[in-house]
Amino acid sequence: MQTVKQNFYIYNTLENIFVFLHPKNPIAVKMKINICQLNYLTNKTECNKEAIKQILLQNSGDTLNVFGEMSLCGYPLYNKNLYNNIYKQTSSAGDELCNTGKSFIIGTCVKNEDNYYNGLVFVDKGEVKALATKRNLGRFDTNYSSGNGMEVINFMNKKTAFGFYEDIFNFYQRKVSVDLIILCSNYLFDKDYNNDIEKELSDYAKKLHADIIYVNRTGAEGNFVFQGGSFVMNNNGKVIKKFSEFAEQQEIFKTETDNTSNPISNIQYPISDVSYEERIFNACVTGIRDYWRKSGIKKAVIGLSGGIDSALVAPLAVAALGKENVVGILMPSEFSSAHSVNDARQSADNLGIKHYTVPIQGIFTASKEALQELLSIQKQDTTEENLQARARCMIVMAFGNRLGAAMLNTSNKSESAVGYGTLYGDDSGALGPIGDLYKQDVYALARWINKATAEGKLKEYFSYEKDFLIPQSSIEKAPSAELHPDQKDSDSLPEYDVLDKILKDHIENLADEQDLIDKCGYDPSTVQKVLHLYNINEWKRRQEAPALRLSKTCFATDFKINY
Amino acid sequence: MQTVKQNFYIYNTLENIFVFLHPKNPIAVKMKINICQLNYLTNKTECNKEAIKQILLQNSGDTLNVFGEMSLCGYPLYNKNLYNNIYKQTSSAGDELCNTGKSFIIGTCVKNEDNYYNGLVFVDKGEVKALATKRNLGRFDTNYSSGNGMEVINFMNKKTAFGFYEDIFNFYQRKVSVDLIILCSNYLFDKDYNNDIEKELSDYAKKLHADIIYVNRTGAEGNFVFQGGSFVMNNNGKVIKKFSEFAEQQEIFKTETDNTSNPISNIQYPISDVSYEERIFNACVTGIRDYWRKSGIKKAVIGLSGGIDSALVAPLAVAALGKENVVGILMPSEFSSAHSVNDARQSADNLGIKHYTVPIQGIFTASKEALQELLSIQKQDTTEENLQARARCMIVMAFGNRLGAAMLNTSNKSESAVGYGTLYGDDSGALGPIGDLYKQDVYALARWINKATAEGKLKEYFSYEKDFLIPQSSIEKAPSAELHPDQKDSDSLPEYDVLDKILKDHIENLADEQDLIDKCGYDPSTVQKVLHLYNINEWKRRQEAPALRLSKTCFATDFKINY
Repeated sequence: MQTVKQNFYIYNTLENIFVFLHPKNPIAVKMKINICQLNYLTNKTECNKEAIKQILLQNSGDTLNVFGEMSLCGYPLYNKNLYNNIYKQTSSAGDELCNTGKSFIIGTCVKNEDNYYNGLVFVDKGEVKALATKRNLGRFDTNYSSGNGMEVINFMNKKTAFGFYEDIFNFYQRKVSVDLIILCSNYLFDKDYNNDIEKELSDYAKKLHADIIYVNRTGAEGNFVFQGGSFVMNNNGKVIKKFSEFAEQQEIFKTETDNTSNPISNIQYPISDVSYEERIFNACVTGIRDYWRKSGIKKAVIGLSGGIDSALVAPLAVAALGKENVVGILMPSEFSSAHSVNDARQSADNLGIKHYTVPIQGIFTASKEALQELLSIQKQDTTEENLQARARCMIVMAFGNRLGAAMLNTSNKSESAVGYGTLYGDDSGALGPIGDLYKQDVYALARWINKATAEGKLKEYFSYEKDFLIPQSSIEKAPSAELHPDQKDSDSLPEYDVLDKILKDHIENLADEQDLIDKCGYDPSTVQKVLHLYNINEWKRRQEAPALRLSKTCFATDFKINY
Repeated sequence: MQTVKQNFYIYNTLENIFVFLHPKNPIAVKMKINICQLNYLTNKTECNKEAIKQILLQNSGDTLNVFGEMSLCGYPLYNKNLYNNIYKQTSSAGDELCNTGKSFIIGTCVKNEDNYYNGLVFVDKGEVKALATKRNLGRFDTNYSSGNGMEVINFMNKKTAFGFYEDIFNFYQRKVSVDLIILCSNYLFDKDYNNDIEKELSDYAKKLHADIIYVNRTGAEGNFVFQGGSFVMNNNGKVIKKFSEFAEQQEIFKTETDNTSNPISNIQYPISDVSYEERIFNACVTGIRDYWRKSGIKKAVIGLSGGIDSALVAPLAVAALGKENVVGILMPSEFSSAHSVNDARQSADNLGIKHYTVPIQGIFTASKEALQELLSIQKQDTTEENLQARARCMIVMAFGNRLGAAMLNTSNKSESAVGYGTLYGDDSGALGPIGDLYKQDVYALARWINKATAEGKLKEYFSYEKDFLIPQSSIEKAPSAELHPDQKDSDSLPEYDVLDKILKDHIENLADEQDLIDKCGYDPSTVQKVLHLYNINEWKRRQEAPALRLSKTCFATDFKINY
């Protein structure tokens, strides 16, 4: 049995009993459903099982405990060579959970002959009663075979359908009448979508005249951030209770046999008051926190240039890991302006993080000397610029090695789209927390952090009390890579506000060259330049630091860490 | 209309007429089928259309010309934002092809409402008669919706089914009687499988009593190598003709109305006499050639250490790109042995490639000086080793920049599996031609190249005429990274013969820790060490140079280049 190294589930142990269900059958027994939105660990069945067992033992036998998709073994499981072992581990862990004699729905890896399925097991007082296997597989369900979809079971006199969120349409087509639908999911966070699942399921609740319980997981894994936001919806399609996006949460709901009144009809549809920027902030912090914590790494190193990107990633890292675990490296060159060095130092000082200054001049000079023969071939070009960026990567990675820390990448989506960065240079890092944010989002998030800090909203993360946690001049000055004298990003790229709009229309709204020019009205030569850069830099994006996935159009080729 | 930049189709214009079909209906008209195994270009519809049009115009109207899956737009198309434009381009290109009045089956992107399908269009004398859309989508059919599978059409009095290789099982289940089945595919090369599709389809030919024509594409794209090997099979399941794996080929087959005798029963089943190593050699050469050629890059740079990996990649690059386009960089350090420097020079001299010597001592010293404060924290560890590997990456990439060349990566699969390499150091490069080969395969391929050269088999690639094209001592000496004094790979890893076996059993045969110890009989502590290294280095593999895919278990997160 593998050693349990860590277990960081923090439960909300309060039993907030909500009255919500109004069964068609008035003689139905009162039933309690415990919705568990947890942060599971991938390929750590033993840890997940222990967490689940503790919850089961806290509750009485008449409670149905609903855990999420793949709750027992974690998700996503990329490598097929893990499956055999995971199947063995989850089988024995599942038996142990059944021995508690409790009732629950659990997600696990199911095997039939040589095929593996993404399954949900329904256990009634310790006995396995039904199995739902995922039919509509997602792009991250690698190695699973398509299963049978949702299942229907009679549980405490209620006709209950359970299965995966992705299979609700096929269930709807079957026209089976049920009282309650329980859907599990590993839905990913998307900065541009909020409440979209509620809207979709609201239709089904009304059409099927059934209550719906939707259970998603929370937390992050590799470069994935899960959306959380589990909810309970009545058969009028009204959301009675919605969980938060980024916290583990556990609450018990019970059925109500008195159907003379509708006790929940007055409950307001919960409108999320969390802003666009705040959701992104929370996602980034969760992403960094779980990547480092689940990898067993404490410290992060980050190159601080004084520019907006690193000035933003630094506070995100501090919020996620604590200021004592973030180390900033300032690496000025002959082309660095005085204000950049000041801004970088100011950024580190405001956050209270340890920082080192390591000028790159010596390495840059030595590399130019070593390459004298080559560099004399033609006049200065990006070769010399890339040498500087790579010298910086060498330095930050050396700090990472010696301090046992992982490197934070500071690239944004706009740069990545047009290849404005150096591979094996500033494109490096274990994780790119802002790699899925366009430059305009980077500015918006930086301004939000400053505003929220000034308003005292982020006291749990930052002790800073002056006006600008992120130096105002990092936000206001014109972006520059500072790799040759007086360089500006706008020397080789369109201004970021234009660039971002073109990229968004192309990448998210799927406008092609002709649409961008004719329908969107952008300047033709700018469009051609941007699309050309976007297309020729695919190979570079493939090797960049994996971006934290904050949208469906993230460039990252997703990955996970097996630990 | 986009400019046609290049078009490198080389046709076999001979009409090798084979007699093969023996229709059940003796009054069937004679029908000629032209099988076209071509090397298509991704997202270059105009080029593909021109190549296809030339072929159509060469043939008479009674010939059915069969092109492969996605032959009009290329494959794979990763980014959804390409589809709109591609759909427009292929629609107008398809119209132009129909205007020839010829008959053909062509693969293209098909749209229905907002969904895209991987489609095959059947055109009879310029008129679109039927459409088959791929039902069983593969892992690389990103963004396509699942279609209807195979279609049946009456063509010149023959009942003909056509569609995708992946959909044959569903077609078989429909129990439709046909004379001829035409299957198209973009099947990938696999070094461990040869003739597996023939074996599978042979069963279907017999059960369905139908002749089968299987058309695959050839060439490479990004890190994919396609398997070619199109074939014609009679209804007894015998292969009458098989195309080669790595060449464009085009041949015409005609139906035979005389069914009193079976003219093809005496034809020998073609056994491939191409060895395991030769197939890998061809795949690597094709992979490098098409990556560079399709990216519009002429030259390759490669770091030559004198070790076996770079000594193998160099001749592969020369075979693919020509010796005038390959540049070797020798980068000795204080830890380099004299024999390594000699071997590296010998390797370059044997191949006749230009090479530069750039010692890394200056950069290494300058970086240690810059990092003095950090490096004094604790005693020497991998930090100093990684500095050397990253200095070398800086140098090779500088040559790449200045010479307009792309860097070849020289890592192998065994190293990559256990993370024995430096990220942003020797793990770098545009493409890793041997990244999917275990160390034992690397040795086998190197020995094969030496033997084949000595036997005069590779004269089209190498002019060398002595005994060892690849220095014998590169093959015989103990592998070493030479990053500290007297270092050997076996100081930190098991011997490669043991390591490779454990990795293969784990990665390919899916044996878990317990199986590896109990069933395979490996030493438990070695197994634990290998699996631990394998698991913790997933993050590193994610950012390595993309390995050329030579098997189903390649680590590469596949990608493509849009050009």
